Amino acid sequence: MTEGLPMEVPVAGLPPRVRIHEVGPRDGLQNEKEVVPTEVKAEFVHRLAGAGLTTVEATSFVHPRWVPQLADAEDLFPRLADIGGVALPVLVPNERGLDRALALGARRIAVFASATETFAARNLNRTVEESLAMFEPVVARAKDDEVHVRGYLSMCFGDPWEGAVPVHQVVRVARRLMDLGCDELSLGDTIGVATPGHVQALLARLNEEGVPTSAIGVHFHDTYGQALANTLAALQHGVTTVDASAGGLGGCPYAKSATGNLATEDLVWMLHGLGIETGVDLGRLTATSVWMAERLGRPSPSRTVRALAGTASHKES
Amino acid sequence: MTEGLPMEVPVAGLPPRVRIHEVGPRDGLQNEKEVVPTEVKAEFVHRLAGAGLTTVEATSFVHPRWVPQLADAEDLFPRLADIGGVALPVLVPNERGLDRALALGARRIAVFASATETFAARNLNRTVEESLAMFEPVVARAKDDEVHVRGYLSMCFGDPWEGAVPVHQVVRVARRLMDLGCDELSLGDTIGVATPGHVQALLARLNEEGVPTSAIGVHFHDTYGQALANTLAALQHGVTTVDASAGGLGGCPYAKSATGNLATEDLVWMLHGLGIETGVDLGRLTATSVWMAERLGRPSPSRTVRALAGTASHKES
Repeated sequence: MTEGLPMEVPVAGLPPRVRIHEVGPRDGLQNEKEVVPTEVKAEFVHRLAGAGLTTVEATSFVHPRWVPQLADAEDLFPRLADIGGVALPVLVPNERGLDRALALGARRIAVFASATETFAARNLNRTVEESLAMFEPVVARAKDDEVHVRGYLSMCFGDPWEGAVPVHQVVRVARRLMDLGCDELSLGDTIGVATPGHVQALLARLNEEGVPTSAIGVHFHDTYGQALANTLAALQHGVTTVDASAGGLGGCPYAKSATGNLATEDLVWMLHGLGIETGVDLGRLTATSVWMAERLGRPSPSRTVRALAGTASHKES
Repeated sequence: MTEGLPMEVPVAGLPPRVRIHEVGPRDGLQNEKEVVPTEVKAEFVHRLAGAGLTTVEATSFVHPRWVPQLADAEDLFPRLADIGGVALPVLVPNERGLDRALALGARRIAVFASATETFAARNLNRTVEESLAMFEPVVARAKDDEVHVRGYLSMCFGDPWEGAVPVHQVVRVARRLMDLGCDELSLGDTIGVATPGHVQALLARLNEEGVPTSAIGVHFHDTYGQALANTLAALQHGVTTVDASAGGLGGCPYAKSATGNLATEDLVWMLHGLGIETGVDLGRLTATSVWMAERLGRPSPSRTVRALAGTASHKES
């Protein structure tokens, strides 16, 4: 019986509304071994929009050699044109990717930077400075076209090779991304090692360096089970943009672990319990994740999806 | 690479030290289908003590007909006599259970009450009032012997049959348990539906009714992934006693779900990241949970255990 649950009990000082940046179709599916058919991806995004998500990261224009799972971006993106009122950002790695995204009419893009040299070298095959130089014309041209730019910053708390990442190092790269012209940042805890004090300390230092909380999203991974506690700490600092992945799909292919992204359903359960508006229908969202899990042939790692999947509440759609 | 992780970043206003009430050997193992051999249970408790846990709930003196998994309490408890400096509370359901526990020299006991009538009827075969009447002589006799008494209060946030549980209803039963003479309460979110505002609201109301935060422990389940966020909310209210189960063992047999108790390792990761002392060696604790998982023939549900199990850090013991 989940009627009336979670009980809504607000906490003073938290934001009244949170924008969930849904990353399942891009960050989730790019880490699947099997390539998901384009029509399934399109239906996934439609279902997520139907569940009330207002920002759904749709795909990536990375070269198909690197991410074959999303090689169908040109085929997929036009199939989403009928989705009204939902922002559909796409990841672009460089100017060639930007060309492809703009040609399809994308109005929101994201670039993907690293706070550590080791991950920049392994993931981008560049130094941090070289990757920023690569993004500079991408962001400039996007801004010229009034395209919204998100800057992902990965390894903000720890790195599998470098260990703990100093706050000042993250702030330096974050500041550079903002100076390039990014409209918002997404602070990634790519290997899931952050704890609430670390989160609040990084946010405070970013504010001191002139990056307002309104321009900051948080992207937590649940590798050590910390994602939702860290989200609460971020909300307490005033953050109103939270990344999550429907059903907990995905994760980082470089960090070996059974768990990855914060599950959108677990996030929504907490937010709704706190009386924070999301616009999301948890029943429809859970049904979508159950449907996607069936397509992928394995159960969702989201605890909320598993708990609700046995009840009637996910059968609305 | 987990050296230097989690990075220690304290948050102002949180307690400097938390006492973890480890429930794995009792709450965890009583929910196992297979009965774990007594010598394995004894080694489990010894290993947990060796990992630095200072309170380990060892077993239960419930009638073996109801909990056959812990029918060996008389055999197990004396095997723990050589563990110095560690509190070993045991669950007692009634006077007969108290007789058995006292005969073995137990110095800490726990009784198990319900905040809802439906769970009291199903779990205790009594009304809430009848169960309190049953505990009255148990607590009185324990206090006469200067035995420490913990009162578990289950279904404090939601109930599988009744839905959301009103705060005033929980406070009423909590107050009764304190009036009987309990030294501390453990507030159980038996089906894992609580969110942080609900937790803080219940704690505030208990304080208003004269139950000090120092007498309150929290017992969260991770059914909806909320346990650690709720723990953070409780710490922010001043709570310094947190229940957890090594490796995430156990759960509630009446709440169908793959997930149960908050995993001690996930809790320790957060507490150490916050600079809060626990006395626990996370590497030794993880090694203990890996060892226990091997005995049970399935992997630990703890995310931290899974993440660390592939690294060297759990191989200390």
